[in-house]
Amino acid sequence: MTPFIAELLGTFFLILLGAGVVANVSLQKTIGHNAGWIVITFAWGLAVFTGVIVAGPHSGAHLNPAVTVGLAIAGLFPWASVITYCVAQMLGAALGALVVWLIYKDHFDATDDHQTKLAVFSTGPAIRNLPRNFLSELVGTFALVFVILYMAGPSLQLDGLSQAKIGLGSIGALPVALLVVVIGMSLGGTTGYAINPARDLAPRLVYSVLPIAGKGSSNWSYAWVPVLGPLTGAGIASMLYLLLSH
Amino acid sequence: MTPFIAELLGTFFLILLGAGVVANVSLQKTIGHNAGWIVITFAWGLAVFTGVIVAGPHSGAHLNPAVTVGLAIAGLFPWASVITYCVAQMLGAALGALVVWLIYKDHFDATDDHQTKLAVFSTGPAIRNLPRNFLSELVGTFALVFVILYMAGPSLQLDGLSQAKIGLGSIGALPVALLVVVIGMSLGGTTGYAINPARDLAPRLVYSVLPIAGKGSSNWSYAWVPVLGPLTGAGIASMLYLLLSH
Amino acid sequence: MTPFIAELLGTFFLILLGAGVVANVSLQKTIGHNAGWIVITFAWGLAVFTGVIVAGPHSGAHLNPAVTVGLAIAGLFPWASVITYCVAQMLGAALGALVVWLIYKDHFDATDDHQTKLAVFSTGPAIRNLPRNFLSELVGTFALVFVILYMAGPSLQLDGLSQAKIGLGSIGALPVALLVVVIGMSLGGTTGYAINPARDLAPRLVYSVLPIAGKGSSNWSYAWVPVLGPLTGAGIASMLYLLLSH
Amino acid sequence: MTPFIAELLGTFFLILLGAGVVANVSLQKTIGHNAGWIVITFAWGLAVFTGVIVAGPHSGAHLNPAVTVGLAIAGLFPWASVITYCVAQMLGAALGALVVWLIYKDHFDATDDHQTKLAVFSTGPAIRNLPRNFLSELVGTFALVFVILYMAGPSLQLDGLSQAKIGLGSIGALPVALLVVVIGMSLGGTTGYAINPARDLAPRLVYSVLPIAGKGSSNWSYAWVPVLGPLTGAGIASMLYLLLSH
Repeated sequence: MTPFIAELLGTFFLILLGAGVVANVSLQKTIGHNAGWIVITFAWGLAVFTGVIVAGPHSGAHLNPAVTVGLAIAGLFPWASVITYCVAQMLGAALGALVVWLIYKDHFDATDDHQTKLAVFSTGPAIRNLPRNFLSELVGTFALVFVILYMAGPSLQLDGLSQAKIGLGSIGALPVALLVVVIGMSLGGTTGYAINPARDLAPRLVYSVLPIAGKGSSNWSYAWVPVLGPLTGAGIASMLYLLLSH
Repeated sequence: MTPFIAELLGTFFLILLGAGVVANVSLQKTIGHNAGWIVITFAWGLAVFTGVIVAGPHSGAHLNPAVTVGLAIAGLFPWASVITYCVAQMLGAALGALVVWLIYKDHFDATDDHQTKLAVFSTGPAIRNLPRNFLSELVGTFALVFVILYMAGPSLQLDGLSQAKIGLGSIGALPVALLVVVIGMSLGGTTGYAINPARDLAPRLVYSVLPIAGKGSSNWSYAWVPVLGPLTGAGIASMLYLLLSH
Repeated sequence: MTPFIAELLGTFFLILLGAGVVANVSLQKTIGHNAGWIVITFAWGLAVFTGVIVAGPHSGAHLNPAVTVGLAIAGLFPWASVITYCVAQMLGAALGALVVWLIYKDHFDATDDHQTKLAVFSTGPAIRNLPRNFLSELVGTFALVFVILYMAGPSLQLDGLSQAKIGLGSIGALPVALLVVVIGMSLGGTTGYAINPARDLAPRLVYSVLPIAGKGSSNWSYAWVPVLGPLTGAGIASMLYLLLSH
Repeated sequence: MTPFIAELLGTFFLILLGAGVVANVSLQKTIGHNAGWIVITFAWGLAVFTGVIVAGPHSGAHLNPAVTVGLAIAGLFPWASVITYCVAQMLGAALGALVVWLIYKDHFDATDDHQTKLAVFSTGPAIRNLPRNFLSELVGTFALVFVILYMAGPSLQLDGLSQAKIGLGSIGALPVALLVVVIGMSLGGTTGYAINPARDLAPRLVYSVLPIAGKGSSNWSYAWVPVLGPLTGAGIASMLYLLLSH
């Protein structure tokens, strides 16, 4: 498996399972309707877990342009591969969103509220205030990338999100999953914690082109927040890591 | 313990604990009544965890005809043993469903709705649409089998669901349990995620023959979906795995 | 630390945290009031986790007369030590229940329903049917003891509930905790899953002697069920284990 | 990274994520509004997990003056460093609380009840009874520190909360996180389980000086309970540990 395929497949599973849980909890007539924030945050964490297991040994399992850029800034990933990774992540995320729509289509049809439909694909703020929403995405992604940089320990060569090389097998994917769970529970209350440009942008593109019955605006005026906020947060995390490591 | 006994016992615990949690959450007058989707999905994941611990070192802990067939397609399990495994899984699942009924019988009697009673045994769609229900089971099982195939890592000989051989003890059963949790949370909203022909078919047979007070239809017209959907998804997962490994 | 002290302390933490969560969820005016079955079952599992960490390396962390007797039947624990262990477990459980009452006393006073008060200490059936309640405790404890017997794997010397010796540190206590979580979620809906004679009997004794305001019956006519059911289930589990191991 | 920076950063993440989840669950118009006790207790546990990952290899990840003092009493930490650690913990906690306010400011503004606002920063009793509230914090912290002292096992040199050195990577931070989860679920129902003087005192100071719209009393008359209760409980835990180890 090439790194490109690994990132594509890993991000596919991330969005299949991540957008999937939002569909299950928020669309009408699903079995998990109104299952609550515990289910949404736990499933997003385990969606990362799943993606890391598949992609980990092959690409380092970034699954997130903010992680890719953050690792590049920290000197732990070659800049020349950044575009390749980000394209794979966007394609995988788009494919995952598409499959969620195919599976849950009858439930999209049974749902009237167009904002609920958009929320399956992309994040939006609870209270719109773009500078503060940007700060929220920045801090969430700062926590994600900064802690990932410390997960492998000071004396180990970092291998993206994967700890497979230190002998833990697929259980090694659990720490990053738990990190994503707690970021969602604690910092996700304002903007829905995109903390990943591909997670938000690619499904928003899919939403805008799919023939979803009764769909509304794709909220493009907000779309830059979950892209630039995460990238900025990842950059700050990487620079602070470099500062503290020297 | 022979592989036959191991698969039978492992699948017994899977259904004892899996059908058990549905009984607890959905039947009347139980202590866990209406405990929610978080309890159902978590318990099903831990039901797999339990089954894998018991069966893992003895049979590889497939516990699922779709896993058995998928591994055979991938060349990781002998075709000659497929029938033996599937028979053991069906018997174990039937036995597990029977014990759940014995324990919860007073609560079955206290419950009027016959669909609730059937749901303890077998899955059913939230919105009946057989092609889409089939797709839903296909995708859920694709995720299950494809990710299991990557759990042992690229350089390790796969040992079914069990990672016991790579030195993690019974904690090695946790990744597949978490995978089942997230598949349920995210993809289970449409059909209740059988993702396992034995899990659905054997309890449905038990339901159809047991003298359950006030029982209704066994919904046989739907019964092929949670059998053929999982088998198809497992086949696609195995073939994609083979394609990507060469 | 002697095995006696270890069992006493381990069972103290088990009941401090186990009875504690029931107090928090069910008594009036607590911060966790009505937090649900997910909190109760998760906390009981983690109560076992905590007890195993403390007692594991010193006594094997049985924390449960049914486990002690079951291991003795399986030839994995000396009969001569059974009484010592059970006495320690009863004392630890009584002490844990006492401290829960001291901490939550104002909330006991704020609660009118005397059955709610008893439920903090001891289990009771959702639907009283003594033979079936007995069966329910038997099956739950069968699952507990049978799976514990397989947790160390076929080639390892069993060390009670502790896997500390196989190099996992305190994370090795997690599998038995997860097993207790799923037994509660799935099989606890009928009788509240004592699955441990000391867990039920010692706190019931404490309840019967403490000067709890507005307390009611200690329900002694039910008290034999969560004692004999678990012991019978543990015996069957051990004998089946022996049968399958030869 | 110096131990001072490590404790500051680790406690920053502890409060960022811990106060963050309270903000998300309790303030108005958040996405996780009313998500329940399961989310609060789980996120606080994972907040510890996150802090331990960052600080563990550099300072031992105390993140809590009660742990620092407890380890010093047990002879496992030099008294000369206690002040340094506690100052770092207070600064980190204050910084974490500040960032939570910045992110959630629009939700603070949307919330009328001033007690809800204070609760994001600091704990308070469900039923005010200072001696019993003190006992509750004492017992919770006794459980925390006593069990931490046993987590590394009898033959291993204790390394604060971190098990990184025994080869588990960042998964080694999980046991202490699960311990914090169960203490919250089981013993947190009375006072909200500060079990950490820095966690309560530093955010209370921040609350008292920040220009929070519509804020009320900082409840200073209660503030000594979550400081002295944890310190006393940690002292008792350490002395009992010493007693049992000799």
